[in-house]
Amino acid sequence: MDYFEATYHLDVAADRAEALAEAVHLEQTIETPRGVGLRYPFVRAHMMGRRSAPVPDPAGGFRVTLTLPVRTAAADPAQFLNVLFGNSSMHAGVRLDDFTLPEPLASLFRGPRFGIEGLRARLGIHDRPLTASALKPVGLSVEETAALCRTLAEGGVDLIKDDHYLADHPFCPFEARVRACLDAVAEGAARSGARSVYVPNLSGTPETILRQYEFARKAGAEAVMVAPMLVGLPFFHELTHRRLDVPVLAHPSFTGAARMRPGLLPGKLFRLFGADAVIFANYGGRFSFPRDVCLDVAEALRCPWPPFRPAFPVPAGGMQVERAAELVETFGTDAILLIGGSLLEAGDALLERTRAFTEGIARAALSTPLQP
Amino acid sequence: MDYFEATYHLDVAADRAEALAEAVHLEQTIETPRGVGLRYPFVRAHMMGRRSAPVPDPAGGFRVTLTLPVRTAAADPAQFLNVLFGNSSMHAGVRLDDFTLPEPLASLFRGPRFGIEGLRARLGIHDRPLTASALKPVGLSVEETAALCRTLAEGGVDLIKDDHYLADHPFCPFEARVRACLDAVAEGAARSGARSVYVPNLSGTPETILRQYEFARKAGAEAVMVAPMLVGLPFFHELTHRRLDVPVLAHPSFTGAARMRPGLLPGKLFRLFGADAVIFANYGGRFSFPRDVCLDVAEALRCPWPPFRPAFPVPAGGMQVERAAELVETFGTDAILLIGGSLLEAGDALLERTRAFTEGIARAALSTPLQP
Repeated sequence: MDYFEATYHLDVAADRAEALAEAVHLEQTIETPRGVGLRYPFVRAHMMGRRSAPVPDPAGGFRVTLTLPVRTAAADPAQFLNVLFGNSSMHAGVRLDDFTLPEPLASLFRGPRFGIEGLRARLGIHDRPLTASALKPVGLSVEETAALCRTLAEGGVDLIKDDHYLADHPFCPFEARVRACLDAVAEGAARSGARSVYVPNLSGTPETILRQYEFARKAGAEAVMVAPMLVGLPFFHELTHRRLDVPVLAHPSFTGAARMRPGLLPGKLFRLFGADAVIFANYGGRFSFPRDVCLDVAEALRCPWPPFRPAFPVPAGGMQVERAAELVETFGTDAILLIGGSLLEAGDALLERTRAFTEGIARAALSTPLQP
Repeated sequence: MDYFEATYHLDVAADRAEALAEAVHLEQTIETPRGVGLRYPFVRAHMMGRRSAPVPDPAGGFRVTLTLPVRTAAADPAQFLNVLFGNSSMHAGVRLDDFTLPEPLASLFRGPRFGIEGLRARLGIHDRPLTASALKPVGLSVEETAALCRTLAEGGVDLIKDDHYLADHPFCPFEARVRACLDAVAEGAARSGARSVYVPNLSGTPETILRQYEFARKAGAEAVMVAPMLVGLPFFHELTHRRLDVPVLAHPSFTGAARMRPGLLPGKLFRLFGADAVIFANYGGRFSFPRDVCLDVAEALRCPWPPFRPAFPVPAGGMQVERAAELVETFGTDAILLIGGSLLEAGDALLERTRAFTEGIARAALSTPLQP
């Protein structure tokens, strides 16, 4: 196959749709006036692609589908992004909505290395959503962070992750934190009798992240968190394809939201680049994404898309313990339910509230059919 | 100084401004309900920052200024971005507008290593804007690309850069292209009697880019182009701070995916992270940025901001040869004027049109006072 398709939403009035569609087409292909491309036989035959007419979108505006040469995009994962939404990301009113991925583009990627099945196997949990919580606020000492870990693990939380603001701070240095949290989670898990995994946040320039990872692995970390848009998707690709040997949880920091359909970023693209689980801002929380948008993200992460494994959706961002049943009903059992602040609000009653959370999820799962 | 300021534009009605300002404040600091932060003395004293009341923006909407702890942000350049606009990039209607950079934040960065003065010194041109053109469309063979180089150099263009779509393609492999273009530019420059520099595009995952750079340097490249948002700002930082020893031209591909004032990205942030010259989509071209927005980008790149050197603004994106005088008048002499497609449209008359461009700029500069 020589072409792939990319679909864009055009937020313009009818009388400008055709011109904007043409502009996006030229921008994402030859990036010159059409006549310049036509002068070169190879360019004319292979590089110019084609486009649909703009089609009215029932939700308003228009949609246009470009048929783009795989030849240009297949050089590298960064180049794929470039051809997909490089310059047109700057076109006012344009949003990237979707893409297809025929060979040889698909071979650039391996998607999640563990995904839902691999993460479940590692945790030995097959019949309910996983639970997760976050170590925050930033500013806690190593001891305070570890104490939080211990309680959350004792309360039965499966994945206990660093807040994405935790970096290598003097008041809570990375190496000391990782060591202390691994120990604390082990202690808490010994008390609960269940398995908990501490997920350190890797953050920084590539060299820093690789150094952090090496330390965390030697110390025994079994999963890590990275914010793909913050570190750059090409480096994230390098991490998932050549560097990491444990599952990676993707954090949505810096994803912006304005210019790609959320189902695409953090959904489809994070999965494609290798995230095993993807945190996203859920409806009814601190962000204003509507419910159907969140379901679209979950669908993008879990839908059949061979050869790429499904990845866990991790709805988060201001979830409440009281919403456990609703969240399980909405996202089904193949999800990781992440609750941070709502647990921490319990103060000294953190352990009880954590148990209420994990037991609530287990209970809700009993009445929810397993994901097919 | 313990705090820095970040200003956000809130695109909301008056009755929602206060709530959104509060949401952004919590999100960019403790990322938990306020009560959780207050429980910990260190967090309460040092991590919660403060915020202004939302102030009506004459252009519509509101502005809010957060006073954020340097402590959290100063761990690393990636962490700085995280604290600046990590999660709030997902808040609907929020745009990052500006930030201050007191010590020790400023010490994380060195800004342009060459900047306007260093680039001018390397080229030996001090009294006029620099000229630039692009090798496109993608799809040209190595020979065709080199032929274009030769003509553009003979026509007197100072910087001849790869199109940002040029990667390591089978139809135009990186190493063969770099070698051929360096030779071709040298030949063209010998004919014109002026100095021209070929600027290869480095593109890919970090490992690929480092490999490409090593090759390009050995082959004699004296400047390179990178798209910072495509490769990720943290890796770009690593490049400019520890890897590159030639000037770097920043390309704006993928910048639209972030919601920031253009003066900030690609302007202020690209300069801060070390770009020596920054390409941006100019008014009156293929993108719809207004003139004052473009002047704002140029201002952000050139304004006094010790200790950071000024960087060259490179207005581009559908510029016309006929606009030379107007562009010089608008951007002054400390600019690089980049014209690609408009030259290529000349077809067989490319050399004449290139000369018209470079001579037009030189002529326009005669009547323009030098930048102070």
